[in-house]
Formats: sequence, C-alpha cells, structure tokens
Amino acid sequence: MNLSDIHSPADIKGMDAEDLMLLSARLRTVLINKLAARGGHVGPNLGVVEATVALHYVFDAPKDKIVFDVSHQSYVHKMLTGRIDAFIDPAKYGDVTGYTNPRESDFDLFSMGHTSSSLSLACGLVKARDIAGGDENVVAFIGDASLGGGEALEGLDTGGTFKSNFIVVVNDNQMSIAENHGAVYEALRELRESNGMSPNNIFRNFGYEYLYVREGNDLRELVKAFSAVKGSDRPVVVHINTMKGLGLPVAEVEKEKFHWHVPFDMKSGAALNPQRSLSYPDLFARQMLRKIEEDNRIVVLTAGTPGAIGFTAERRAAAGDRFVDVGIAEQDAVAMAAGIAKGGGRPVFGVMATFLQRAYDQLSQEVAINRLPVVAVTFGTGVFGIPDETHLGFFDIAMISNIPGILLLAPSTPQEFEEMIDWTLEQDEVPVVVRCPTYPFESETRVLPEKFTGPSYRIVEEGSRVAIIAEGGFLGRATKAAALLREEGIAPTVVQARMLSDVDRKVLDSLRGYDLVVTLEDGIVDGGFGQKVASYMAQFSVRTICKGLPKEFLNGYNASDLLKSLGLMPDRIAAEIKERL
Amino acid sequence: MNLSDIHSPADIKGMDAEDLMLLSARLRTVLINKLAARGGHVGPNLGVVEATVALHYVFDAPKDKIVFDVSHQSYVHKMLTGRIDAFIDPAKYGDVTGYTNPRESDFDLFSMGHTSSSLSLACGLVKARDIAGGDENVVAFIGDASLGGGEALEGLDTGGTFKSNFIVVVNDNQMSIAENHGAVYEALRELRESNGMSPNNIFRNFGYEYLYVREGNDLRELVKAFSAVKGSDRPVVVHINTMKGLGLPVAEVEKEKFHWHVPFDMKSGAALNPQRSLSYPDLFARQMLRKIEEDNRIVVLTAGTPGAIGFTAERRAAAGDRFVDVGIAEQDAVAMAAGIAKGGGRPVFGVMATFLQRAYDQLSQEVAINRLPVVAVTFGTGVFGIPDETHLGFFDIAMISNIPGILLLAPSTPQEFEEMIDWTLEQDEVPVVVRCPTYPFESETRVLPEKFTGPSYRIVEEGSRVAIIAEGGFLGRATKAAALLREEGIAPTVVQARMLSDVDRKVLDSLRGYDLVVTLEDGIVDGGFGQKVASYMAQFSVRTICKGLPKEFLNGYNASDLLKSLGLMPDRIAAEIKERL
Repeated sequence: MNLSDIHSPADIKGMDAEDLMLLSARLRTVLINKLAARGGHVGPNLGVVEATVALHYVFDAPKDKIVFDVSHQSYVHKMLTGRIDAFIDPAKYGDVTGYTNPRESDFDLFSMGHTSSSLSLACGLVKARDIAGGDENVVAFIGDASLGGGEALEGLDTGGTFKSNFIVVVNDNQMSIAENHGAVYEALRELRESNGMSPNNIFRNFGYEYLYVREGNDLRELVKAFSAVKGSDRPVVVHINTMKGLGLPVAEVEKEKFHWHVPFDMKSGAALNPQRSLSYPDLFARQMLRKIEEDNRIVVLTAGTPGAIGFTAERRAAAGDRFVDVGIAEQDAVAMAAGIAKGGGRPVFGVMATFLQRAYDQLSQEVAINRLPVVAVTFGTGVFGIPDETHLGFFDIAMISNIPGILLLAPSTPQEFEEMIDWTLEQDEVPVVVRCPTYPFESETRVLPEKFTGPSYRIVEEGSRVAIIAEGGFLGRATKAAALLREEGIAPTVVQARMLSDVDRKVLDSLRGYDLVVTLEDGIVDGGFGQKVASYMAQFSVRTICKGLPKEFLNGYNASDLLKSLGLMPDRIAAEIKERL
Repeated sequence: MNLSDIHSPADIKGMDAEDLMLLSARLRTVLINKLAARGGHVGPNLGVVEATVALHYVFDAPKDKIVFDVSHQSYVHKMLTGRIDAFIDPAKYGDVTGYTNPRESDFDLFSMGHTSSSLSLACGLVKARDIAGGDENVVAFIGDASLGGGEALEGLDTGGTFKSNFIVVVNDNQMSIAENHGAVYEALRELRESNGMSPNNIFRNFGYEYLYVREGNDLRELVKAFSAVKGSDRPVVVHINTMKGLGLPVAEVEKEKFHWHVPFDMKSGAALNPQRSLSYPDLFARQMLRKIEEDNRIVVLTAGTPGAIGFTAERRAAAGDRFVDVGIAEQDAVAMAAGIAKGGGRPVFGVMATFLQRAYDQLSQEVAINRLPVVAVTFGTGVFGIPDETHLGFFDIAMISNIPGILLLAPSTPQEFEEMIDWTLEQDEVPVVVRCPTYPFESETRVLPEKFTGPSYRIVEEGSRVAIIAEGGFLGRATKAAALLREEGIAPTVVQARMLSDVDRKVLDSLRGYDLVVTLEDGIVDGGFGQKVASYMAQFSVRTICKGLPKEFLNGYNASDLLKSLGLMPDRIAAEIKERL
C-alpha cells in the first residue's frame, strides 16, 4: 500500500500487527524528512507515532472523539486522517498547520495550542454524549508536561467523577519541553519504576481505573491496551511510557533542543539557517545572570518554557537555585512570584505573551491588589510573534494595560529593554510588565539619547500640527513615516509611548492644539493604548486615528503582507496623514 | 483574662489546654453575635475556631507565615491578632474587612478573596525564605473546596518538590459552598473514612508527608498535630476533619445556606431583612429551568457557586443531570462548556464576574478561537456588586470585550435580560456573554418597546446636538439626565449600547455632526466600550467624554458616595453636558 492511499483511518483497519509496524516505520521516515526540511515539534511527534497509529486502529474516529492536548503531537494523526500528502509531497508541506483545527478536517475537534485543556474539553464531550444518549468513546491524549497545568488537574478532577466512558491516554515521555517539574512527575516516575504496580497511584486517587503500558512504542502492546479500554463504562487512564524523539538519533539525545526545532541537518542536528542576529531572550538571560550575581534577592521564574526566555541548560545551571521552573503552570508561577516578592525576594517571570493569558486573575489578584513588585517580561509579542491563531502575541496590551495597578512598559530597542528592566528592579512600588519587542524594527545598535528613568512618554522628534504616538514595537514605523512627511514639508511630532497602561497627560496636553494625532501599536486597537490616547484627545475634539492590529484570531498570516494590508508601512502611514490633514 | 486583653498571639502562649478551650468557646460566642448582627462567612469561620487558636498557639506569627486561602476563614485569626475589638464592640464591627489585608495588620500577608491561591503564594514565601537562609515556618491553610481549583493543584504540585519546611493545613469540612464536587473530594472522603490510613493518599502522591486529625475541632489534638509538624524540614500536609458551622445549630444543619449569610436571627436562622425585590439570579434560574424542559441540549454549569446564580438545592434537583457543578474550577467549567457545545449541547455558564477572570484564557482559546456557541451569564457586575477589592465586578467589560470573537451583551431590564438569553440560545454562530445588571436602576417592570433581535445599539430617545450612550447598567442615569436637560431646552439623543464588544457604526455615523457625545458605563473607562466609541468619534473630531469607574481596586466603598464623587448622578451628568456644550 502506498502511503498516499491512506485517506482515512478506515484504510488501516484491516492491517495486521506487522503491517501496522511497517506502516509506523514508514510514517516515521516521512515525518523525519518533513521535520528536517520545515521544522516543527520534532521530539513530541516522533515519540507518538505508534500510539497514534494504535489509537486510529482501535478507535473509530471521527465517531469516537479523540482530543489531542496542545495538539502539537497531532502530526501522525493528520497523516492518517486524509492529509498524508502534506507530509509526503514537499510542494504540499504548507497545506497543514502544526495543530489540530476543525477547519482543516472533521477529524480535528478543536483548534488548540495552549496546554492542559484536553481533559476539560473531553469532559464536555462526555457530558454532551451522555445527555444525548450516545455511545461513542471519548479519548483525551495528554502528555509532554501538560498534566501539571491547573486546567488539566481540574479536568482530571471532574473526569474522575463520571460514571460513563472516558479514556485518558497519558503519554509519559519523561520530559516536559525541558526537564519535568512538579510532584506529579515524581508520581509518574514511581509508577514507571514499579511497572504501574505502585499502590501510590495518582490516577486511582482521582477516581480512574488504570492501565500501564511499559513499552509505549510497541504497537502490539498499545493495540492491546487501547482495545481493553475501548467501550469502557468508567473513567480510565492508559499510562504509556514512550520515548521522545524516537528514530532520530540527534532528537533522542538532545530532547530539549528537539522539542521544537527549525529546519535542521538530519545527521548533525545543526540548524540549516542558524539565527545570527542578537536575540532578545539571550539578552534577557544574560542580563538576569548578571543581576543574580549582583543582587541575592533575584529569582527568575519560567512556566515550562526556559528556552523561550533564553535560559539554556547551561544558563539554568549557572543560575542555580535562583532559577525556578514550575512546569507549565502559569497561575502558579505568577502567584509564587507574588509570594517571593512578599518574602523579600525580587521575582522576574519570563513568559510568552500568549501564555500569560493563563494568569490574568493572578496578575490582578495576587500581584496587583497586593502591590507586590513582581516583574514579568513577555516575549513573542506583536505581529512578529508566532502567527498561529492559538499563539498570537498581540492581545497582551489590551489584557494587561486594563488591570489596575500594573505598569506596562514597552521598550523600542535592546538598550531600552535592559534599562527598563534595570529600572523595574530598582523600584519596589509597583508590579511591572516589560513587553519585549519580538523583531526590533529599530536598529539594534542605536543609542538612545537619554536613559530610561521612569514611566512617561518620550518626545522623539519635535514638530507641529500632527503627532505620531507609537509604542516601542512600532516606533521605527513612526520615525520612518515622519521622515517621509518632512520631505514634503510636514514636520510631525514623534512620541514614544513607553508606558501603555496609562496616558502621559503632560505630553498629550501639549498636543491639544494639534490638527491630528495618530497612534501606532503592535497590538489590537481595541482596548489598547491608542484608544486611551484617543479618548483623552476626544475630550478636546482633537482628531485622532488609532492604527494597529485587528481584534481577530488571524491564522498563518505573513507579517509583511498583513502590515501592508493594514496600512502600517511607513509610506502608507505618511500618505494617510497627508490625506487627513 | 478579658478577651479585649488579647492584643497578639503572644497573649495566649502561656495558656494550658483548658484555657485554650475556654478561650475558643468565648471567641465562638462573640463571633456568633457579630455574625448574626452583621452577616458574613458564618459556617466557614465557626468551623475553624479551634484550628485558628491552635495555629496561633503553636506557631509564632508574624515571624512564622500563615497564608489563609480565600481568607474568608480568617475572622478568628483577626480576633487573635490585635483586632478583637472589632468583634466585641458593635460600634467597631466595621473596623475590619471580611478578608485578610496587609493594610489592616502585619499578621495578614496578602489581600485575598479568590480561592485556591494560598499554596502558590506560600511556595513563594518558602522560596524567598530559602534563598535568604531564614528558618520560619510557612503554613498554608486551605479548605472549603479551594483544593479542587487548578491553581491550588498547581501549587500542591510545586510545593511537593521542596526539600524544606512547608506546612499545608487542609481544613476538610466535607463541604464546598454547596456540596463538594470533583474526584479530589472522594479522595478526602476515603482518607477520612480510613482515619487517614488509606494507602490511596493524594497528598503522599504529591510528595507530602501526611498527618490526619480526626477531631479537627479538638484543641488538644490540633495542638499536638501542629506541634509535631512545626519546624518540619519537608513538605507536610495536616488534614483536619472539622465541622462547618459548629456551635450555631441552624448553621450546623443548613450548611450551604450559612456558608455566607446576611444578618440573621440566631434561633430561627431567618434573615433579619429578607430581600423582597425580584432577584436576577432567581430570574435566571427560573428561565433556565424552563429552557431545560423545552430544549434537551441545554446544560447549565456553575463553578462552585450555585446559589449566586439562583440554583438553590431544589432547583438543582429539578435540573437533574442538566446542571453541572464542577467545583471551584472556572477554567474547567469554561473548557467543559466548549466541549459540550462541540458535542452538540448548549452550555450556559452562570458565574460571578470577578471569578470569570480565572478563565480568561479558556474564553479566548477553547471558546472564542473555536467559535463555539458557549453562553456565559455574569453576575455581581458593576458598581453595585461586592465592594471588596478582591471581588469587584467592574473590570469585566474591559476583560471580555477585547477578546476577539466574543459578543458581550448588556441588558438594562429583566425583560431585556431574558430576551438576550433567549436570543443567544437561538443562534449558534458566536459565543456570548450576557452581563446581568446587579441592581437595576431601571424600573423592574418597564416594558421595552421592541424585542431584542440581535446585537446593535438601540436609540432610546431621538434628539440633537448631544448624545448620551449608556450600556445597560447605567441606562437609567442616561434617561434621567436627558429628562433634566430637556427641562432646560436641550434634547439629547439617548442610545443604549446593548453590545459592548464592538461599536454600532451605523448609529455612531449618524452622530458625526453632533457637538458632544457622552458615554456612560458601569465599569472602568479604560478598555471599556466608551473608549471604543470615543476612538471611533475621534476620527471625526467629535468631542467625546467617557464616564465610568476608575481603573482602581476600590475597597469597601459606598456605591452612592462613589457615584456622586465621579459625577455619575443624573443631575451631575446633565450639568456637565450643559457646561461642555
């Protein structure tokens, strides 16, 4: 059988165990080729080839409902559900995304990308099935450290009370993105080491029947286990012990590095197009290591994504007990940061902007109400962040800037980024979020004329009649647009909104006689800093235009095309200002 | 010793067991008197009198750090830490709040009010202590169903990995606000029933040593247990079995009703000033019960607060399996609602606005990205919600209206509230949040001229030159202000912003030639609907004023005074408009 003849799981139902093993081997080869050429979640998908084949062999999707947690481990699922061409044919590599998406296939139940939601979503499917009197299996496939997230534990808690079919497959590859953190993983280890026999069983504690599969990459074992639980009338956990990165030697060894990887050389594992420019996460980690040496109160926290904030294994070792990885548990990270601050430490939480959403309430309650000097530094912000609808980094200004008592700062250059962090650590009055730009539009090396000494707007260029006010990420667009306008005899005032959580009344008052104010932000306009400016200027009838990103879940966009279509290129900004004047 | 001579825990250190028991009895009597007169968290505090006395007898606060989860169980703690007069002297009853607050006492570590945060906060205190080389005990006191919340489980997970002192007291009163939900509570039951001996031990699973106290209201037992763990060099759980409401017969029997209660008659338990007006939660629950009968896809969800959404025990029984209480786990509730919608059900999640903050990410990811027709109905919104800084209901517009793809509706009357819910259940295109007003300013019985048929602004009164645009909660202020202005020859156009997540361009375009637009919202101005209107009007240079609440954590405010100080009374609104014209 040609792989391209697999159009749906029905096409593998007649296979015997040897066929299935052969199929798995062929899928893995195809997968490695695509991963090397295009990058992606390498280790996670290589580890679940057999488990995915076994799932689709045993269960009858889409009638049976399989929810992949995070869905970053769904590549093989896509290969088996009508999308194999996107893995075989390099010309079609771009036809599928890296996550499940119902708009791509009926076999995909949800568009997902954040961790730990599969159990609760599956609980909902169970409830809907039970009130409708259905008999399909509901399966949640969770692993790769998602189990330590609060939402997953809440879902585990609810699911354990069902009196009907609910199957949880725990893919235990002994890893998170980096090493595992949290007591839950000690409990998994105990189960692995006792071959599932330890009386200390967290899943039984939560009300589940329990089945352990020691050889989680052995198709026969997996088929046996899944067949045993298919049609179960109770909640049951199948704990499978798999190997992350299986079949690609470099990924088997360097598990953290190959959790997600850009295109690479299959033999050496070297990136094909290594990044040469300065990276903000590197900058951040180096600054933090210096700070840790200087100030013994500093504690850096991550919620399971040390690499995304520049903390390589070497840097983690250098930071020692001053670096804390709580696992993928953002609520815990933020609340723990509040506790550290209360206890006299100086916590700095580095986090992807999209994942900070998980801790909205903790930012508000534990941190802001208590006025604790917690520092959060957000990465992956703005239009140049990850362009997947589940990982967008441009809702953060609207989210953070409207929580009382949190100061949101937006640097425009690496220098300002460091200065702002320095400043936040020198004060202990307010919690601060520093929004790290993703790809600086500004020249990396440009030296700012003055050091950052506190939250205010900065007058970058003095002009008249029209003002362009931009936050850090888009400041370069403002200065470039201003340069174009000056060529035409219009001299705009250019202002950098360095703080986004409030307006600088002094600066805005100086613009009261202006004909036009334009705001630019690398975030959605709704709820953003521009609307704060516009509503301030509106009381003086000053014409104000807010420019930024749309309040939409864009998916797979090209940043340049998007910016063009939104009139956010400097020439279009300049032209629009000319028209409006 | 007079109770009023207790100024700090030092004053009880010399007592023997009998003294402590006598003290507990006297504290309980005082407490019951105040609770009956002023209301509050009755059952939770009566259940922990002995535990609190024992804690302060054994540990040395404030050096030893005790974090009370939710802190609704901190009344006795307050009595023992310099604030006894606020319980003895009716004239001073108002001197303390119902929650811990560092601005009230150094013995209070955090201002808290949402559940499940104590463990993570305490983990932070542990970390800060360990890097500073301190030797104080860190104690988290958690119970009353907080343990099922994801944040608590994340904190339990992190805390279980410590190699140093961390003491968790689990106050197990066999209850949540209503009955307990979730498999964790089955695990607690198993431990209770085995007198702590079951090998199935969730706390040991999470890496804790474990001690069970069967008689959790017995001072000697508690002192013995706390003394045994004091100075522990490991994470340890003390599981105490207490009786909610102990000492007040009506509260011992009607545990749910007396979780929190308004002032009551001590004998009968009857409310002293029973509410006679129509309650929105009652309205909601009755409507939902009708819907459940009409449509077998409807499922109503709560996250541990059925009473707050009108679902009394009788109504829960009537709803049967179409009512789901997931326990205090808002993330799970929202994600499960998404799953139910995907499975063909029609989920309606009733929730206090302040607690919905816990599920920001789930609203965005699980619900909105997936465009699932989940309905959330929020209670306790706006200035007339709970005036505690931890429970404010006026940040919700800014939070929800800036999440893409969620329609936020704001009814102004009971009729409109029901019509909007009807409409949301008749469509299946978008997720909707219906923002229930808390105390309707509008007459309860006023009949709206037209039925709600979809998201748009409603022209309430046609006028000229000036427009007042109000969301539902403040619409009455707009019409009253307009009436005052008409007496002076000014005829404003009055508009109800029935949807807050987007502007109604058609209506706003019709106001382009106006001299003044004023927006009114029962929420913070920052990020609210008014700023959307202002930034829309600002592009046409129409003078716009946004009026609403400040972006601040107000605490213990009087709503009328606050509204006066903000110029939000109809006469002041009218006067301001006159001045500005």
